[in-house]
Amino acid sequence: MLVVQKYGGTSVGTLERIQNVANRVAKAREEGKDLVVVVSAMSGETNKLIEYAHYFSKNPNKREMDILLSSGERVTAALLAIALNEMGYSAIALTGRQAGIKTDTTHTYARIESIDTTRLNSEIKGGNIVIVAGFQGINENGEVTTLGRGGSDLSAVALAGALKADACEIYSDVDGIYTTDPRIEPKARKLDFISYEEMLELSSLGAKVLQNRSVELAKKMGVKIVAKSSFSDNEGTVIYKKEGENMEEVLVSGVALDKNQARVSLREVTDRPGIAAEIFKKLADENINVDMIIQNASNNKTTNLGFTVAQNQLADAKKVIENFDHDIGSSDYDENVSKVSVVGVGMKSHSGVAATAFEAMAKNGINIEMISTSEIKISMIIDEKFSELAVRVLHEVYGLDK
Amino acid sequence: MLVVQKYGGTSVGTLERIQNVANRVAKAREEGKDLVVVVSAMSGETNKLIEYAHYFSKNPNKREMDILLSSGERVTAALLAIALNEMGYSAIALTGRQAGIKTDTTHTYARIESIDTTRLNSEIKGGNIVIVAGFQGINENGEVTTLGRGGSDLSAVALAGALKADACEIYSDVDGIYTTDPRIEPKARKLDFISYEEMLELSSLGAKVLQNRSVELAKKMGVKIVAKSSFSDNEGTVIYKKEGENMEEVLVSGVALDKNQARVSLREVTDRPGIAAEIFKKLADENINVDMIIQNASNNKTTNLGFTVAQNQLADAKKVIENFDHDIGSSDYDENVSKVSVVGVGMKSHSGVAATAFEAMAKNGINIEMISTSEIKISMIIDEKFSELAVRVLHEVYGLDK
Repeated sequence: MLVVQKYGGTSVGTLERIQNVANRVAKAREEGKDLVVVVSAMSGETNKLIEYAHYFSKNPNKREMDILLSSGERVTAALLAIALNEMGYSAIALTGRQAGIKTDTTHTYARIESIDTTRLNSEIKGGNIVIVAGFQGINENGEVTTLGRGGSDLSAVALAGALKADACEIYSDVDGIYTTDPRIEPKARKLDFISYEEMLELSSLGAKVLQNRSVELAKKMGVKIVAKSSFSDNEGTVIYKKEGENMEEVLVSGVALDKNQARVSLREVTDRPGIAAEIFKKLADENINVDMIIQNASNNKTTNLGFTVAQNQLADAKKVIENFDHDIGSSDYDENVSKVSVVGVGMKSHSGVAATAFEAMAKNGINIEMISTSEIKISMIIDEKFSELAVRVLHEVYGLDK
Repeated sequence: MLVVQKYGGTSVGTLERIQNVANRVAKAREEGKDLVVVVSAMSGETNKLIEYAHYFSKNPNKREMDILLSSGERVTAALLAIALNEMGYSAIALTGRQAGIKTDTTHTYARIESIDTTRLNSEIKGGNIVIVAGFQGINENGEVTTLGRGGSDLSAVALAGALKADACEIYSDVDGIYTTDPRIEPKARKLDFISYEEMLELSSLGAKVLQNRSVELAKKMGVKIVAKSSFSDNEGTVIYKKEGENMEEVLVSGVALDKNQARVSLREVTDRPGIAAEIFKKLADENINVDMIIQNASNNKTTNLGFTVAQNQLADAKKVIENFDHDIGSSDYDENVSKVSVVGVGMKSHSGVAATAFEAMAKNGINIEMISTSEIKISMIIDEKFSELAVRVLHEVYGLDK
């Protein structure tokens, strides 16, 4: 049985914690598993290096940033291998290059193109526990690349896929995926299972346990992810394909909250072809990240258009909108909104899920400013002050605490 | 004009100092020089990583140590390149591998076997200042290797040799090579020039400005070294081939002191073939590093043998000697001795240099316990308490302050 394990920055944040990880790896080895272990940099290390770079330049060269930032994971990988060998377990540390991780040439945000598993397989066959420096690879020109924030998750999933591992265990300081944030709703329950699709919606909505790109890659490669805590022996949550009938029973898997939202509403927008495209193109040109977009059916010669942006980008968005004065009747901004979302593959085939949400919100006096739905998600923009109440109301109305 | 510059750990010890190095590099660039700049890890960084490794193991795997330790120089190289680019100078950071530095397979103490200059030359030709992470290379199996303590000097000299650079400037916090340690003899004078041979004797005798292996390599490859300070604009000392007649004038270039010496004297050692070899083989087996060795001409059936070791290895040496009881009449140890040495290519062709030393020592009541001489060096073992006095006496008697 081959398992890929990944330990995040908090899990390897101190020398004591690296020793703790070594103990866990050794235990899995004693259970007879073949192991590839991907590690992040010690927590704080990557931020420190970024600060260093920004001392010299606001826009440091990306190629050089990759040489800089890839060093942290190398340190952790080497230390973990040293710890395991000292405990009597053969272990070898590999850099991204040595692990055969080939990427494209996009520095600081590279995509993994392929993994040459020759060395990995020979080390595993030779009886070694293979420790891989996460977050990094090498491109066709021999340049060091990194995979962007949370990239070690991506390394782990890609390795698990390429090696056809039985599972990819992602360790962090949280012991799995919850029906909602336990700090908001103490009745939140850890899920035993969640589908890739639900996880994708949840993580883009603010459940920070897993990096979105890794879930997408896991889905594409059919990798079974297990999200676990490196500080406990709790079971964790399996993220995998929707599994037959059982799943149909669960309408809703979780409730997510994103408080970093600002709303922009444009009324009486000239309804000519391409006007929306123009507006969003200009926003993109200014690097403003638009999240939710809704457009009402057009009425005569004008239409209403609404969208949300991160709160710190609202001022920039306003400036862009002002340039469209002649096309927009009136505009209205709200900096203090949040997005609360209900996610569940079950809702695809069940009507009434949305109605239940709207009714529960109304009953509690929470006004819904915008609504957007997908097959497995209902998102609502509400006044920020109702955020926590809305989460608890929705958590209860779908029986997530049971 | 192509110059290789090397900046040591103290010179890049803080972000401010890295900026200072960037300014110096930029200045050299403005003078029209092509530049390859080798950097060490920020001071303290390598020791920190070694401590980390020793938290897990007394004898950490050497292969993993190399992945660990090579990270510090990568950080400095990337930061310096970022700083230069921000200032408007095209610069690119290369890891040891990318700089084409190929070594043998001896982890943590690898020897440079060759340098593939293809990439270096193309970057230089392309107008880039090339920043190279020092102290590291790659072996034929694609494994990361490091070159041992002070290895960045070695990287710089090897690169200067391979690229046929006009000079290899080694920057540290000292502005050159002195006739002796200025903390002991305030009249010590900075040398404008010193030959490879003299430098080799001086550095193995405790002048810590340049790593010995680098001077040997420079000699072999004919690389002109300039030892300079990164904190001043002083001229520095040129280390190069002995240059014709002028040199003949100088009898003695410097006086070196090594206080970390313990003396072992063995009397009435059975004078049978191979006995010395046996003793030193056993000492080597115990990793005891023997420095000076002298043997008196044999007298009848016994001989006298003396040698020095580092003070902290004396106890181990004693144990080894005890095993030779039947071959050794008596033994005598002195933990508190030091070695004072006079170095100069001039003494090759001049008699009387040794006599001058012995006479000066006698006049000042300093008893010489052991003497060893080479063509360009006279070393004397004396009571440790006379160390500084001996240095000053010798410095004066050879007129080194003039």
